[in-house]
Amino acid sequence: MSSDSASSWSLDPWLERDSVALGDLPLSRLLLMNDANYPWLVLVPRRPHLVELIDLDDAGQGTLMGEIARVARALKAITRCDKLNVAALGNTVRQLHVHVIARFDGDAAGPRPVWGAVAPRPYDAADRERLTGALRRELGLA
Amino acid sequence: MSSDSASSWSLDPWLERDSVALGDLPLSRLLLMNDANYPWLVLVPRRPHLVELIDLDDAGQGTLMGEIARVARALKAITRCDKLNVAALGNTVRQLHVHVIARFDGDAAGPRPVWGAVAPRPYDAADRERLTGALRRELGLA
Repeated sequence: MSSDSASSWSLDPWLERDSVALGDLPLSRLLLMNDANYPWLVLVPRRPHLVELIDLDDAGQGTLMGEIARVARALKAITRCDKLNVAALGNTVRQLHVHVIARFDGDAAGPRPVWGAVAPRPYDAADRERLTGALRRELGLA
Repeated sequence: MSSDSASSWSLDPWLERDSVALGDLPLSRLLLMNDANYPWLVLVPRRPHLVELIDLDDAGQGTLMGEIARVARALKAITRCDKLNVAALGNTVRQLHVHVIARFDGDAAGPRPVWGAVAPRPYDAADRERLTGALRRELGLA
């Protein structure tokens, strides 16, 4: 019996709890974090047992970089942010995931990184729908 | 007169002040941050006017991902760290640079990101030489 690696992947429950799913790119599930302080996306490659970027093979790393760039361009186009933050940290959630965050001069975290800076501020439903709709359209996930 | 883009690149003075150079990979200069709290490397693509990952063309993004992976594997092999942190933030230093940091359970920043967590602790010369020597050998930069 061959193992089906795709079927054994599942999204980390902490990531699932704090986000809404925007859809699937060829490698990664794309999430919007439920924190209106910053437009904050997370890419999660849908392969089991990944912790580090270097757990992906070379082809997977290349695909992931392409998806990071595609998502970063869409996020910048929609939000007109001042800066992007891109990071794979995994200090608390071990499942490999890549943050792509739109930052603005004077936003809630100021010049600091967003993690732990201020308490998350959940979206109201209308704002979340506007942003998820715009992102899905820009990324062809509608 | 054609412009020579390589010759117009220079390392951001803040990055230069806080680090020692380990050498040049095909695209990036590799730095060791002078903070003994964590083995902390930084890749800086040697092309002028880059701020975001998406300012690199597709080929450059692929090369950078390969260099991130090469450096991450070397850092993990030498430090036997518990986790890698990889990030391109740029909230204060705008020149595109990618952090590759070895993290240990119970290190100075605990589960938090390293930026701003605790004051930098400069290496003593012998420890710095041991680490830079090991990294240069592992990466073929000796």
